[in-house]
Amino acid sequence: MSERLQKFTQWVKEENYAFSFVHTSANVLYLTGFDCHPHERVLGLVVLPDADPFLVCPGMEVSQARDAGWKHEILGYSDSQNPWAMIQEKLNERGVAKAEKIAAETETLPYARGEKLLGMYPGAKLSAAEEALNELRLVKEESELEILKRAAALADYGVEVGVSALKEGVTEMDVIAKIEYELKLKGVSAMSFSTMVLFGEKSGAPHGNPGLRKLKHGDLVLFDLGVVLDGYCSDITRTVAFGDIDEKSKEIYETVLAAQLAALEASKPGTRIGDLDLTARKVISDAGYGEHFPHRIGHGLGIDVHEFPSMSDNNDGILKAGMVYTIEPGIYIDGLGGVRIEDDVVVTADGYETLTKYPKELQIIK
Amino acid sequence: MSERLQKFTQWVKEENYAFSFVHTSANVLYLTGFDCHPHERVLGLVVLPDADPFLVCPGMEVSQARDAGWKHEILGYSDSQNPWAMIQEKLNERGVAKAEKIAAETETLPYARGEKLLGMYPGAKLSAAEEALNELRLVKEESELEILKRAAALADYGVEVGVSALKEGVTEMDVIAKIEYELKLKGVSAMSFSTMVLFGEKSGAPHGNPGLRKLKHGDLVLFDLGVVLDGYCSDITRTVAFGDIDEKSKEIYETVLAAQLAALEASKPGTRIGDLDLTARKVISDAGYGEHFPHRIGHGLGIDVHEFPSMSDNNDGILKAGMVYTIEPGIYIDGLGGVRIEDDVVVTADGYETLTKYPKELQIIK
Repeated sequence: MSERLQKFTQWVKEENYAFSFVHTSANVLYLTGFDCHPHERVLGLVVLPDADPFLVCPGMEVSQARDAGWKHEILGYSDSQNPWAMIQEKLNERGVAKAEKIAAETETLPYARGEKLLGMYPGAKLSAAEEALNELRLVKEESELEILKRAAALADYGVEVGVSALKEGVTEMDVIAKIEYELKLKGVSAMSFSTMVLFGEKSGAPHGNPGLRKLKHGDLVLFDLGVVLDGYCSDITRTVAFGDIDEKSKEIYETVLAAQLAALEASKPGTRIGDLDLTARKVISDAGYGEHFPHRIGHGLGIDVHEFPSMSDNNDGILKAGMVYTIEPGIYIDGLGGVRIEDDVVVTADGYETLTKYPKELQIIK
Repeated sequence: MSERLQKFTQWVKEENYAFSFVHTSANVLYLTGFDCHPHERVLGLVVLPDADPFLVCPGMEVSQARDAGWKHEILGYSDSQNPWAMIQEKLNERGVAKAEKIAAETETLPYARGEKLLGMYPGAKLSAAEEALNELRLVKEESELEILKRAAALADYGVEVGVSALKEGVTEMDVIAKIEYELKLKGVSAMSFSTMVLFGEKSGAPHGNPGLRKLKHGDLVLFDLGVVLDGYCSDITRTVAFGDIDEKSKEIYETVLAAQLAALEASKPGTRIGDLDLTARKVISDAGYGEHFPHRIGHGLGIDVHEFPSMSDNNDGILKAGMVYTIEPGIYIDGLGGVRIEDDVVVTADGYETLTKYPKELQIIK
């Protein structure tokens, strides 16, 4: 059994759960190595405190689960079979005769599926397994970091393609199409979210919608993109200038960059997580732009593009080596434009390393 | 109140529900016109039997809901507010003092949200609202057909781009990148599913994964793609030959085409839905390929790329004018390749019309 699965099994046992039913693709991938997206069909990993775990998936996916290295039992079902009956039978076989508490990802488990589980054990209750699973995923292993680094390098490449596509008159959508095209040629089959390219005043909204705005001299250009690689996500933001920009835009750029570097420098084992936000926020507030930085400094990154830890000012957690997150301060001025600079970061034994490497000094594209 | 919402309100009343909580983006769009994807935040439309409905959404989305034409009440909440407390207060205000039955989309409503609703009315039960909502969406209105036609025309264009990108040595991913690039230039911001382009033997798997397989003379090339436009989906499949193909591949092509045309011809008001599958399946079985057609003939199409009706042989429903679905028979030969031909179809007063129009006679690309 993998170390991850052992730890989760230990939690199920310590918390006195009869069993846990893990249904999200992300956590099944994390605990089994199997990357499965069966849409409306049932996927589940059943983890028992004192017996072997088993996987439930569509019959046509069984061989992929084996290829992914899952050595324990698999219940593969056809469309004419009832997976819940198979699960109940297997639970009985493993000695789960009664249950008071069942752990599940209740924030996303469909209500009807929760009822299927509870129907097997009348009187039982479902409790949330999310926190335990999020905690497990918080510190990345070497094998995960290796994938995250490759995903980050592709994000760097996406920005490089985007910057080289800038010329007077192109639209935001043109540039997005070019970036995604070139990434597809590198074998990327999914972006980790909708690629964002915003020109000029449109960069002034933290969550703008790219469209047919044409690039013109003096525009700030904001890129925010990432790829999914082997189940893991990257996420980078860079802002460049197209031609000469005004002094205020330059000042904003330098302020954001200083804030980003300050939060990076604070990244090391033992730092309170919320202090990264506060450190960057102080730089921006001191420069007089505090009210123009309306979001947290970043988010955890891994199988999900937003996962634990939440990098907000009120997070009292402590950084540990192996945690991976984004640092992405921004300043947005309505009507003028915005600057955001984002790296993917891993905490090392004595500091940090950025996984994304694209240069950050202000680039003026002529 | 829109006719759709009136009909759903009528159902809530007739079935004696205290209220219905509709949470999926698709059904909220259908009933309100508001296309909202608030990720992990709460979205809900509360429909009451004898009082005005109300919408619950993140505060920053309220103006979009108004722009979309929603005239009834909106509870917009900030991240520091509890939307469930606001819902309960509003329900009390509307006179829902107790509840025995609450209707919700239980196949997708997160368990924890179901518990929030039930926590307001101890002893109440949640029942499935899906069937009623699916029934409502079954027959499309003129305004929906207009969007579906435009979405289908863009799918046709995607195939056209793909066919013109075929040349010796290009990879499947190259062609996908080209298709999505050109569609983005037309303003398409989302595909309705991952675009599929499969060459040669890879087309022999009904759900293959596109990759770096290079195109060579004598390959079958299968395209399966669609776009999302104004909230509605299209879905087309075409198969072409790259250079001369063997006689068996030609026979398969003509068999699939004959099966597709037969199912189309059977499309008219009054036909049993399952008979479309049986009609196509008979053509394929008579030609000796029955075991190589392993899926249903198609699926309903609209806001979701797979919706009601399910076009499977055991569907005893009856076609009515305004129903929209795909007709997509296929034959897949392991090691050789496969052919699938798919159109989006609307039932008219006396027959059918295909929304997708790309030609279907065997095209040999030289």
